[in-house]
Amino acid sequence: MKLYQSNLSPFASRCRIQIYAKGIEGIDMVEPPGGISSDEFKRINPSGKIPALEVDGVVLGESAVIGEYLEEAFPTPSLLPDAPIERGIARLLARVADLYILGPLFIMLPHMNPADRDEAVVEEQKAQLAGNLVMLERYLVAGGYEGGDHAVGGRLSFADCALVPALFVAVNIAPAFGMANPLAATSNVAHYWTAIQKDEHCARVLAEMTEGLKARMSGG
Amino acid sequence: MKLYQSNLSPFASRCRIQIYAKGIEGIDMVEPPGGISSDEFKRINPSGKIPALEVDGVVLGESAVIGEYLEEAFPTPSLLPDAPIERGIARLLARVADLYILGPLFIMLPHMNPADRDEAVVEEQKAQLAGNLVMLERYLVAGGYEGGDHAVGGRLSFADCALVPALFVAVNIAPAFGMANPLAATSNVAHYWTAIQKDEHCARVLAEMTEGLKARMSGG
Repeated sequence: MKLYQSNLSPFASRCRIQIYAKGIEGIDMVEPPGGISSDEFKRINPSGKIPALEVDGVVLGESAVIGEYLEEAFPTPSLLPDAPIERGIARLLARVADLYILGPLFIMLPHMNPADRDEAVVEEQKAQLAGNLVMLERYLVAGGYEGGDHAVGGRLSFADCALVPALFVAVNIAPAFGMANPLAATSNVAHYWTAIQKDEHCARVLAEMTEGLKARMSGG
Repeated sequence: MKLYQSNLSPFASRCRIQIYAKGIEGIDMVEPPGGISSDEFKRINPSGKIPALEVDGVVLGESAVIGEYLEEAFPTPSLLPDAPIERGIARLLARVADLYILGPLFIMLPHMNPADRDEAVVEEQKAQLAGNLVMLERYLVAGGYEGGDHAVGGRLSFADCALVPALFVAVNIAPAFGMANPLAATSNVAHYWTAIQKDEHCARVLAEMTEGLKARMSGG
């Protein structure tokens, strides 16, 4: 198997937490040839996005899809809770991270430089992000979160694999847009964000993302 | 169980195909109280979106998440292929329908009226939609589609449940934006769209969507 990815991509990072936690060996981790969205890489993965997982010549795109594949192909240890409804909550929290936390942040990203920023776009997306963090807080609490080290089910799950990279992007990027502490209004999310960093696999990927961010910021 | 939904919503329609195909009885199907995005409904489902499935007082949002829950809670008949890689392809095609076909269409929708249309937005989203239909075609063929009645694995799957409502929206909405036949450039997608309508559960939901569209267009 080959994973097209980069260490800074939050979607690829979601896959790496899963791969590390399951102890899956022998996945070749490579940057997309020609780069993201290049014609060369689109011949491999039609969307041109990372991550993409090549399995026996077939390429799966989308971290959520790769996540389900890895869970089925390498079931132990499971990264889903046991109870059906908690499995649903784990997937729901992962999807909120993916679409509703990272979504606004990715629209804001090209506007990092205040000099040529489109303020209307930035303000709209900041409001979206703030509202969606409150939504995340409500889903987290409705799912039974009471201040533990993991989002749901008492152990590492899909929810953590997706939330950790998404919250990393939020706390690192939002301050550049005047949101000094984007988690200030969501105490459970803030508590969770501190607690989950004790998990060794999450900590490993956060260190990789930090290295990736440093390289990007120094022009690497 | 209670499903907050509407017959016209493509995301809710995805769930209904699944419910009908599995023969699940006793799900109370209701419109969201107060309407989509209302404060009243957000107290039930924090995102304010439909569909949402209430199970023993816990609410799951997002059709993809509800889909996995229903598959686990009602495993027979399965709506995933048997082979792990084909299961991945089914989920990938469903996600492409969900994000990359319906995504641009939902951005275009408020611009239906040519009189107050933002042409720049419309042109950008039309280009996205056209490109994403080609992406869908490529994933479909890479997943082994050779003109059969179903998208993958030789039987009804998550892929069909999501593609059918998404393609219904595409063929009904795109002409209003000057795309008379949005599937003209993607022969496999076009062939699939004709073939899948023979499936009784897909046909039932397409009829419901058609009724919902008629009611909407007549001001209902």
